[in-house]
Amino acid sequence: MRRALSLAARGRFSTDPNPRVGCVIVRDGEVVGEGWHERPGEAHAEVHALAAAGDRARGATAYVTLEPCAHQGRTGPCCVALAEAGVARVIAAMDDSNPLVNGGGLAYLREQGIVVASGLLAGEARALNRGFVSRMQRGRPWVTVKLAASLDGRTAMASGESRWISGEAARLDVHRQRAAASVVMSGIGTVLADDPKLNARLPGLERQPGRVILDSQLRTPPTAALLQLESPVLLVAAEHAPADRAAALEGAGAEILHLPGERPDPATVLSWLARERDCNEVLVEAGPVLAGSLLQAGLVDEICLYLAPHLMGDAARGLFSLPGLEHMQDRLGLRLLDVRQLGEDLRLRLAPIAQQGE
Amino acid sequence: MRRALSLAARGRFSTDPNPRVGCVIVRDGEVVGEGWHERPGEAHAEVHALAAAGDRARGATAYVTLEPCAHQGRTGPCCVALAEAGVARVIAAMDDSNPLVNGGGLAYLREQGIVVASGLLAGEARALNRGFVSRMQRGRPWVTVKLAASLDGRTAMASGESRWISGEAARLDVHRQRAAASVVMSGIGTVLADDPKLNARLPGLERQPGRVILDSQLRTPPTAALLQLESPVLLVAAEHAPADRAAALEGAGAEILHLPGERPDPATVLSWLARERDCNEVLVEAGPVLAGSLLQAGLVDEICLYLAPHLMGDAARGLFSLPGLEHMQDRLGLRLLDVRQLGEDLRLRLAPIAQQGE
Repeated sequence: MRRALSLAARGRFSTDPNPRVGCVIVRDGEVVGEGWHERPGEAHAEVHALAAAGDRARGATAYVTLEPCAHQGRTGPCCVALAEAGVARVIAAMDDSNPLVNGGGLAYLREQGIVVASGLLAGEARALNRGFVSRMQRGRPWVTVKLAASLDGRTAMASGESRWISGEAARLDVHRQRAAASVVMSGIGTVLADDPKLNARLPGLERQPGRVILDSQLRTPPTAALLQLESPVLLVAAEHAPADRAAALEGAGAEILHLPGERPDPATVLSWLARERDCNEVLVEAGPVLAGSLLQAGLVDEICLYLAPHLMGDAARGLFSLPGLEHMQDRLGLRLLDVRQLGEDLRLRLAPIAQQGE
Repeated sequence: MRRALSLAARGRFSTDPNPRVGCVIVRDGEVVGEGWHERPGEAHAEVHALAAAGDRARGATAYVTLEPCAHQGRTGPCCVALAEAGVARVIAAMDDSNPLVNGGGLAYLREQGIVVASGLLAGEARALNRGFVSRMQRGRPWVTVKLAASLDGRTAMASGESRWISGEAARLDVHRQRAAASVVMSGIGTVLADDPKLNARLPGLERQPGRVILDSQLRTPPTAALLQLESPVLLVAAEHAPADRAAALEGAGAEILHLPGERPDPATVLSWLARERDCNEVLVEAGPVLAGSLLQAGLVDEICLYLAPHLMGDAARGLFSLPGLEHMQDRLGLRLLDVRQLGEDLRLRLAPIAQQGE
């Protein structure tokens, strides 16, 4: 199963919006076929592995990182393919929470007399597809907030200058995170201050994340660097955002989503992205206001904080705007998931601890 | 020598203002005596080791973490004791930069026909006595600034509340650092805000660090918690600080040092402490203004930053007040020395990188 998981991880930058899946077929202690899902619309992991195994799949055990699909999607159902190939046992790392599958794949296999089990290395399998699982189970994407700060917790000098806080190794890591995300989300403040591209700049990438900007009044300039790239840009605007700006931005290639209210509610935006765009993972790269409001709304699953060994002083800009926090008991607790040194910088991965009342 | 260094380290909390020194005497591959300097006024490491070795010191090799002393202090010169015991070789980790020794110990031994070498594990030996070396070579103590902050670089809520940012393991580590320091230094702002004791609360400690408060106008209340403990408190005041307050504070047990100018210059205070009080290591536990001004004056040797996995929001108080930093090129660079997890918190040890023009 470890091998199947590492095969699945090869699809990290390319399977979106599908889950990352790997499959290893073993007969008499020998690997006879393996495969992984490469990109949407192409063959699933099981199909590749069965093709490699050929006749040797008969009587073999198939290890799959996700319950084989039972529905006719862009490809045929994998559980049927496994049964037809004569596989004797199927071990899944986790059930597929996609309502179109949801136990149906394993049930079908059982009916065909195949020995079935699920749950082997389930934690690792869920982590690999945390975005897909989140979309299926919670109806919203997995949300990671990425921040780069100096050691004194500052993201930009008082003058607004912020390039570059972190070093090259950390910036490369950010591009990998963008490449793995369904979309990169930011706010209009960041667009106006930094004119970022928010794309993944890695050699050989075949898929770019979408870009989503919360821009209630459509202040994004039609000449913004964002709009000079091919991958889609969605501007989320208020219901009554100026129509002339909308027209100019659509002319520049942006798509505009109007949501009710003066400021689009982030929770609504996230569910819309999951429902309408099959969006699994959102990487938020934003200023303290958007980062703080997502956090206070309980919408952040992980914070990825790059700390650079510099001091910027207390006139510089902070990480999170958290209005209403007055006392020590109000502070937001985090759990440290891991710390890694990247060049001169530190990368901290953290998960918010659920607050009382949430 | 490793053994000698670990013996020397046993004096970490007790030898001040003397250096921490260990000695191991080896004959025919066997340890025949060892010792360390325990407290000022008592026998040096070499004397303990020679006493343990007795006759077996004759023809042996002595490993000492610091060049043996050549002067008559509170105890007799160790180089004479080593020569008289008939030691054949003396290996020192480093020369003693005390002007009363300064090569004299090793020179004396050489004259007595003893084989002498110096520099074995010199880095470790210097680190152990960084305060003593700093005082001897630079005429000022080694300065460590200790800070505890939330992950977004905040040291107190907007309300001023700051207890406790870090967890128990980190606080215990701070008490160890205080115990190893000659003095703990703070500013009047911290005294008024937190009424701290600034003592080392560890079981079985026989020596407490002195406390030094930069308090130009002598605003420390005579009832301050600081003054309720036995170990000395020095208040550094401006030349023309109110005399009635001085009298009241002296009545409460404080010593007062008046320095020229409206605000005592930190560099002057530090040299005074080295010169007049044999002060090796200063642990600064202060607010952003004092921490920032020490840093900008180039007087900080190490920053010890405890990061707690919390977010306090950008209305909360910052770590360093660094007026005049406008652009990215102005930020103060640090070098990460080590990262350690203490309970839920992270401890980062950092050294400022010397700025251009310093």
